[in-house]
Amino acid sequence: MEKSRYAAGLEKLNEVDGKVGDMVIQSLKDIAPDLGKFIIEFAFGDIYTRPELDLRQRELITLSSLASIGGTENQLRVHINGALNVGITAKEISEIFIQCIPYVGFPRTLNAVAVAKEVFKERKLI
Amino acid sequence: MEKSRYAAGLEKLNEVDGKVGDMVIQSLKDIAPDLGKFIIEFAFGDIYTRPELDLRQRELITLSSLASIGGTENQLRVHINGALNVGITAKEISEIFIQCIPYVGFPRTLNAVAVAKEVFKERKLI
Amino acid sequence: MEKSRYAAGLEKLNEVDGKVGDMVIQSLKDIAPDLGKFIIEFAFGDIYTRPELDLRQRELITLSSLASIGGTENQLRVHINGALNVGITAKEISEIFIQCIPYVGFPRTLNAVAVAKEVFKERKLI
Amino acid sequence: MEKSRYAAGLEKLNEVDGKVGDMVIQSLKDIAPDLGKFIIEFAFGDIYTRPELDLRQRELITLSSLASIGGTENQLRVHINGALNVGITAKEISEIFIQCIPYVGFPRTLNAVAVAKEVFKERKLI
Amino acid sequence: MEKSRYAAGLEKLNEVDGKVGDMVIQSLKDIAPDLGKFIIEFAFGDIYTRPELDLRQRELITLSSLASIGGTENQLRVHINGALNVGITAKEISEIFIQCIPYVGFPRTLNAVAVAKEVFKERKLI
Amino acid sequence: MEKSRYAAGLEKLNEVDGKVGDMVIQSLKDIAPDLGKFIIEFAFGDIYTRPELDLRQRELITLSSLASIGGTENQLRVHINGALNVGITAKEISEIFIQCIPYVGFPRTLNAVAVAKEVFKERKLI
Repeated sequence: MEKSRYAAGLEKLNEVDGKVGDMVIQSLKDIAPDLGKFIIEFAFGDIYTRPELDLRQRELITLSSLASIGGTENQLRVHINGALNVGITAKEISEIFIQCIPYVGFPRTLNAVAVAKEVFKERKLI
Repeated sequence: MEKSRYAAGLEKLNEVDGKVGDMVIQSLKDIAPDLGKFIIEFAFGDIYTRPELDLRQRELITLSSLASIGGTENQLRVHINGALNVGITAKEISEIFIQCIPYVGFPRTLNAVAVAKEVFKERKLI
Repeated sequence: MEKSRYAAGLEKLNEVDGKVGDMVIQSLKDIAPDLGKFIIEFAFGDIYTRPELDLRQRELITLSSLASIGGTENQLRVHINGALNVGITAKEISEIFIQCIPYVGFPRTLNAVAVAKEVFKERKLI
Repeated sequence: MEKSRYAAGLEKLNEVDGKVGDMVIQSLKDIAPDLGKFIIEFAFGDIYTRPELDLRQRELITLSSLASIGGTENQLRVHINGALNVGITAKEISEIFIQCIPYVGFPRTLNAVAVAKEVFKERKLI
Repeated sequence: MEKSRYAAGLEKLNEVDGKVGDMVIQSLKDIAPDLGKFIIEFAFGDIYTRPELDLRQRELITLSSLASIGGTENQLRVHINGALNVGITAKEISEIFIQCIPYVGFPRTLNAVAVAKEVFKERKLI
Repeated sequence: MEKSRYAAGLEKLNEVDGKVGDMVIQSLKDIAPDLGKFIIEFAFGDIYTRPELDLRQRELITLSSLASIGGTENQLRVHINGALNVGITAKEISEIFIQCIPYVGFPRTLNAVAVAKEVFKERKLI
């Protein structure tokens, strides 16, 4: 049922991104509500729920992907929070971006680390 | 000492990429030998050896990064082999690329999965 | 119902991409069958079926997107065929890529036009 | 004549981008005036004037291209206005970005939609 | 005059790229002849002829740009030949790509160096 | 010795980027100090010190690379200052970005020129 994909996705979104993820969905209400629906149903309902990898591994992959393509500061903010929420430490998050240096160079890494610094400060981790 | 970065990097390169990694380094001998040296010393000597993440986590991040930027078929081939070498299963490798779909779309994922299919066949995993 | 998203997507995939699209799905069977399912259900079932734009407009957008990100030769092949299938002419397809020049430069355009040339020859349009 | 490419381009620029396009050109006066001249002569004079596609189709392609490469918020702002100016509706503009999801993922789409939301608010469309 | 931009561009194209550049233009004849015209008039006629930088500096910039965006093997082939034609040495060309490592990582550099290796062999430089 | 790579890199960083480079390194102290160390040792110690190209050529390549990949405004700011520091003129810097137009299109160039405009104003060059 359509309903259960949405419900499963919303549960997973809340588990990973908490309030920050919900804000993204809310901000789409008046312009492209179906975009929010697709994020919940497809990204979180269809993909994040699959058993092959756990949530910590999925956030490792997500942070690497977002840092590598660049121009994703807003999404990095959501998923750096998400990574912390599922138990990845601040030190590990910085290390994810350091591991990307050989593949994407310093600028993408510096940009991602700058977002991490903001999030870590907000959460009083540094 | 300069020597030990190279030695540590070479050991790590062999642990991860085995013969395939060595072939990349050899192929650079007559055109840009220092490029091979930098890969060994910096990527493998300085970064892969850091204790904050283990090799399986580093290969998860690397495959996600390579798939996300695109145009990296040769490097994906090396690191899909590397991921298998450090104990990531074929099923998990496919799942890494599936986890990237929401962030980079289907084409980058399809291209990475096509390389994985070749490697898995070579290694008689499918 | 889950079934109807798949059925609607498969119908749309066949309408747009014909046999070529089916070959992509088949080629994923032994390595990542769910990836093919997601392409059908999400890309073709959820998105291509929406009434806000017609199929010709959607293929215009798709060709522009694929040409712009680069490294998508296989996907361009499928969608150049798809664009012809839904009634976009060969001349219009070349023009889509020309319209991208100011935004992505000549290399991305040249690469896309090279794929178009192959497809047009196969279909005896040039 | 050189003059007529510039004149034709300026006319087309005004038709599409109105005052916003002019502001881009003005802002280049003291640093790289020829860059503004090239945008007018080449992008708008040589390409936008071609008969193979109409202005609405060209803006569809442009918005797709800009959203797909990312890091183009300023250019999206100009061309979302341009798309509205040539008769594409707000709903269609959101749908252009939704059509890009399968090819470039959610972050590029979310970033483009965020710019659209600002423009739509400025023009009191939402 | 339109004629003189084309003539100036063609002269510059021949100076830089020689026969290889001409082959690119010829290959566009039956599919998108105006694309070849734009490369000659705009890229080579309008830009390469400007006095602010010399041809060697322009090829340095071009090789760096092509290597950095990736997926430009065909264009790199043309411009590595072009760089050699205007007096940049094989050693300097490899070094251009090495200088890009900190900004774009190893994969983009390795891909560019692989094209350079082919060109250098064809021209019996290694 | 490890020390001398760091010392050589720091000297080169100061020569190129002056205070601005130092600020980048300082800003990493509390979140990823080794990232700053790698920039100094690897980028500036290992690469910028190589004799095959001079500093002016290296900054030409760097500005082209940063402009081409996009989303690198902070790094462009550092290296536009760096380019001026090693003797490249404001006019030449604008021209580097203009030379990139055929390869990456207008948006990447416009974004780079916008950063250049800010830096040139700060240094009272325009």
